[in-house]
Amino acid sequence: MKSYNFAPGPTPVTAEVTAAMSRPILTHRSAEFSAMLREVSDGLRYLFQTKNDVLTLTSSGSGAMEATIVNLLSPGDKVLAIVSGKFGARWVELCDVYGVDVIAIDVPWGEAVNIDVVANSLQTNDNIKAILSTHSETSTGVLHDIEALGALARERDVLLIVDAVSGLGANDLRTDAWGVDVVVTGSQKGLMLPPGLAFVSVSQRAWRASETSRNPRYYFSFDRAKSSLEKGLTPYTPAVSLLMGLAEILHEIQRIGLETIFAHHAVMAGATRAATRAMGLELFAKTPSNVLTSVKMPEGIDGGELLKHMKQCYGVTIANGMEQYKGKTIRIAHLGYAVDAFDMIIAVSALERGLAFFGHNFELGSGLSAIQQFLHMSETIDRASAG
Amino acid sequence: MKSYNFAPGPTPVTAEVTAAMSRPILTHRSAEFSAMLREVSDGLRYLFQTKNDVLTLTSSGSGAMEATIVNLLSPGDKVLAIVSGKFGARWVELCDVYGVDVIAIDVPWGEAVNIDVVANSLQTNDNIKAILSTHSETSTGVLHDIEALGALARERDVLLIVDAVSGLGANDLRTDAWGVDVVVTGSQKGLMLPPGLAFVSVSQRAWRASETSRNPRYYFSFDRAKSSLEKGLTPYTPAVSLLMGLAEILHEIQRIGLETIFAHHAVMAGATRAATRAMGLELFAKTPSNVLTSVKMPEGIDGGELLKHMKQCYGVTIANGMEQYKGKTIRIAHLGYAVDAFDMIIAVSALERGLAFFGHNFELGSGLSAIQQFLHMSETIDRASAG
Repeated sequence: MKSYNFAPGPTPVTAEVTAAMSRPILTHRSAEFSAMLREVSDGLRYLFQTKNDVLTLTSSGSGAMEATIVNLLSPGDKVLAIVSGKFGARWVELCDVYGVDVIAIDVPWGEAVNIDVVANSLQTNDNIKAILSTHSETSTGVLHDIEALGALARERDVLLIVDAVSGLGANDLRTDAWGVDVVVTGSQKGLMLPPGLAFVSVSQRAWRASETSRNPRYYFSFDRAKSSLEKGLTPYTPAVSLLMGLAEILHEIQRIGLETIFAHHAVMAGATRAATRAMGLELFAKTPSNVLTSVKMPEGIDGGELLKHMKQCYGVTIANGMEQYKGKTIRIAHLGYAVDAFDMIIAVSALERGLAFFGHNFELGSGLSAIQQFLHMSETIDRASAG
Repeated sequence: MKSYNFAPGPTPVTAEVTAAMSRPILTHRSAEFSAMLREVSDGLRYLFQTKNDVLTLTSSGSGAMEATIVNLLSPGDKVLAIVSGKFGARWVELCDVYGVDVIAIDVPWGEAVNIDVVANSLQTNDNIKAILSTHSETSTGVLHDIEALGALARERDVLLIVDAVSGLGANDLRTDAWGVDVVVTGSQKGLMLPPGLAFVSVSQRAWRASETSRNPRYYFSFDRAKSSLEKGLTPYTPAVSLLMGLAEILHEIQRIGLETIFAHHAVMAGATRAATRAMGLELFAKTPSNVLTSVKMPEGIDGGELLKHMKQCYGVTIANGMEQYKGKTIRIAHLGYAVDAFDMIIAVSALERGLAFFGHNFELGSGLSAIQQFLHMSETIDRASAG
């Protein structure tokens, strides 16, 4: 039985990237490595839509979130954190560890933050230094309005720090145009690499904040990363094979273009949402991200049991809901431009069969038919606009 | 855009086989190589369901067909060849080149040979030395009744030589139990290897025939292949990396078991046939093989144009009909045990969208729904018989 993964990361690694990572490992103190690192820097700036420095860390995305806290904030600093799911809560956990005074803006799971609530909180609380937000909240499938948060942050002159681990490269995020100070992502999501690298873009405002930060840092020091990068180096031994894969995928992303990649994710997400509705399922996220489609389980069907059956009988992995929504929602990812319409058809085929097995009352095939209609329509529109 | 291949070969190469072929190339005059070759011999006997010698040639399947003619037959020998498509005709071409007197039993494309016709031909023609047949005729999707031909061959004491290039490992073929003297196959079909190797099983009766054959042979000499094999060698440099992949896939085939593999092909074929009928298409083969499903194009749709559109717009390759049926039939392969239900769903999804594009009058989604019903039913039956 083959395995099909629709959990939100790791995402598919292309044959070209696998080939690039299989070449002899470059020495990380060589001219070839430096040349590659400089190329990678340019590619990352394109992906992040920024002129800022984009630093590469050999860590997971959570490591880069921690790096952001220790480089930019000090004990006693006051911040707002938008908490609309498990990954928003991670900002609060990190602030607690480093003595940062965090005010959580709790948002019901499945909803995006209300910008007025953030504005009010900035108004009523003195000396807020930063807003910490999630871009695409992986636990619920919600997309937050980073553009609006950016406008607010610029108006109030606070830092805007965004965890875009799952969202970057799938949903638009204009770091410079929207005034975002820090954007964090990981290698195993929109970049379609194996896990092991994380990336952080740092604005001039963020660099100034780092000058006064009193938290201890060594491995995660932004300063060391930046001064090394200027010499074409990394401060410590990096995950070189992953960097070789990164160079390859960034070439591909620049060749294809971000606009095309975002449009592709929108079609995959639209097709998946159409299918789930046709199967009589309700969407969980009120403002859905194009990273994943989160749907509520029908009365009487446990998501955990359904997913176990799909994995065992069809080899298909879809993610369970998290925390209090475990078993009550399931999450189907369509993340990475190599995920195509046929992949989503596989996910929906397996989901249909699983639901039929557990007695859900719907017409077997209705989800697939809805995808076919959606794709046929998209194709017709594309053809009309092309010619 | 990703590529999806549903032409009848090459078939998917598994990750395990790719890994095996990526190991350092063994020296073909080493003890390790000999040990591997002996292991491979046992695996091939299992696959061919025979105690006969199974010889490995570095050539395509057509090379092994030619080898069979030059080793077993002489100019002036009289044979019957069953011609029900392009690959049956290849036997006639080979006989013509080597001066073998061939009587063609022409069968309408899309039909299997009538055993009575073969029996009559043996009755009315003196001194027939061999029957040359195809197992699964790839140009039409027809499966011939090799068991019945075997019974006839044993009754009349003629050799039965079978081209099972596309069929072996997909449809049952009991070399010894059915009394088949020579079975030929290639690496890139049911064995799911890259092209480059061919295999021939040779019965005692066939070896006796080779003793008197007067055709010239050197590279394709069965004698040389056999005497080398007994020493754990090949007479000439073989395609070693493919042999390393062969060792791996034969282990897998033995682990899974032929019975399970045949049953899997039957489900894939059944699901595909159900889908095409639901889309209002007519099956071309009257006794269909489980290797591929051949369907007639509806009035007014050219198969070539349809397939070109599917390749260009969806990255999906389905094979055109051959010779006089080019454009009039299309051929969807479900060959190799790594081809799963989701693969067939991809093929049918693309076919539906292509047919809709060309204005075929049917309900988009009906083919996919039929597959879902078929799979759901198979699953229900499996569960009932398991518990």
